[in-house]
Amino acid sequence: MSSYDAWIMSLGTEVVQGRVLNTNASYLGRRLTLLGFRVVGILSLIDDVDIIARYITVVLRDRPRVIVTTGGLGPTYDDRTLEAVAKALNRKLALSYDALNMVKRKYEARNMPLTEERIKMAYLPDGSIAIPNPVGTAPGCWIEVENAIMISLPGVPQEMEAMWESWVEPRLRLIGPSVYIAEILMKIVGVPESSLAPIVKGVLREAPAELYIKSHPKGEELGKPVIELYIMCSSREKEKAMTTAENTASKIMSIIKTEFKASVEVLTRGVV
Amino acid sequence: MSSYDAWIMSLGTEVVQGRVLNTNASYLGRRLTLLGFRVVGILSLIDDVDIIARYITVVLRDRPRVIVTTGGLGPTYDDRTLEAVAKALNRKLALSYDALNMVKRKYEARNMPLTEERIKMAYLPDGSIAIPNPVGTAPGCWIEVENAIMISLPGVPQEMEAMWESWVEPRLRLIGPSVYIAEILMKIVGVPESSLAPIVKGVLREAPAELYIKSHPKGEELGKPVIELYIMCSSREKEKAMTTAENTASKIMSIIKTEFKASVEVLTRGVV
Repeated sequence: MSSYDAWIMSLGTEVVQGRVLNTNASYLGRRLTLLGFRVVGILSLIDDVDIIARYITVVLRDRPRVIVTTGGLGPTYDDRTLEAVAKALNRKLALSYDALNMVKRKYEARNMPLTEERIKMAYLPDGSIAIPNPVGTAPGCWIEVENAIMISLPGVPQEMEAMWESWVEPRLRLIGPSVYIAEILMKIVGVPESSLAPIVKGVLREAPAELYIKSHPKGEELGKPVIELYIMCSSREKEKAMTTAENTASKIMSIIKTEFKASVEVLTRGVV
Repeated sequence: MSSYDAWIMSLGTEVVQGRVLNTNASYLGRRLTLLGFRVVGILSLIDDVDIIARYITVVLRDRPRVIVTTGGLGPTYDDRTLEAVAKALNRKLALSYDALNMVKRKYEARNMPLTEERIKMAYLPDGSIAIPNPVGTAPGCWIEVENAIMISLPGVPQEMEAMWESWVEPRLRLIGPSVYIAEILMKIVGVPESSLAPIVKGVLREAPAELYIKSHPKGEELGKPVIELYIMCSSREKEKAMTTAENTASKIMSIIKTEFKASVEVLTRGVV
């Protein structure tokens, strides 16, 4: 296991029942990858404290560096993520005065009283840091356990993204590997995926481990197969990331043009 | 654990890295729920045979009735789902003559030869049934192990959905519980989620276990909070499903109208 492994847990019955498209997971998968983490898995679970706690324990056994949960921090009866996190980490839920202040200020600003349901949002696992929520009311939660960092964020995308960008990501940048990611997306028309497969395999055989290639069949155009080929390279050196990706793209393009009467077009390229 | 538990595994590095939105999982989550299965989890994993095999083993230990995997059945070097399934089940991959025939016919129709990469798609775990793919080339795979059924389908949504609807679902209908699902979606303007929470909690306290309620905050309209409230009820009797859902909706609507100056509107209602 790499020491920069990451897991995402998207909690909520509405996700597993397919009533909500899991855009939070793809957002986080993208951001964590760009920070240089290797995202190993995304796990969505129903709102069941025991099941969630058990799977947190299973995932922690793989010793990831980061686990990010989304969902289940709100005031409703089925918002029980932190209860599950506390159970998995063998800690108690305790009233966090930082979190309580955050919640209190939100409702005071709207002239609304602090009810039992609202105070519930300020109970965090013992030893955690409250993450301010600039958009909604439920605070997030950052807990360090041995080598892992457990981060819990709300499920509402605007709240989750605002907390990630303003608070979580700046801290993870200090912890994760600092890398550049070069990406090239090409569109190939006229080569079936099964003919492209041995070409990609050959190129990868001689490529560094930081290179990643994936073909996505996109149907047909005028009876010819269309494939989008995605090339990604990560490196601590900006130039190296881009050069490796560029060289790989040229190599594949020249093989395709020689062996097939196919058209190749670069859709996007860039380094971040 | 209920004996109608289901898991979905969406395999592919492109999913965990957030380059693809996992629409397959929400499609399957929806279909399985409507068939009466309790979808417990959705797990996406990177293209790593050992990790995939290990997590299949973990999930199987929970004794679900069905596990559906998508992705990793194609001709490319990283399409290794069936290798992982075989490993987890302690079976060998063997050439399936049914699957080979399916693959052969597809390529013959296009006047293309059977290469090593194409024949690879016909290797299935020992004892499995090949599922025909009416849209693409990679066959799917149905394996019965003790109490669980493992179903592997391709990751291309059109292929996966065609195979699900024409082949998989008719068979699962015979195995799953036969239920009706009634659903009501309401839009509530003017009640904050934290005020709605105790109302929902109260209603659920007296409701049957087959009733499910979830609130989704949808921002604000003219400064007032907007919530979509989803009520679902499953039952073996069609009328009972709808009546329970309707009664629950009326109960919540009358409390909201009495306690708040809020507007409530039914967006959709139906039984399937």
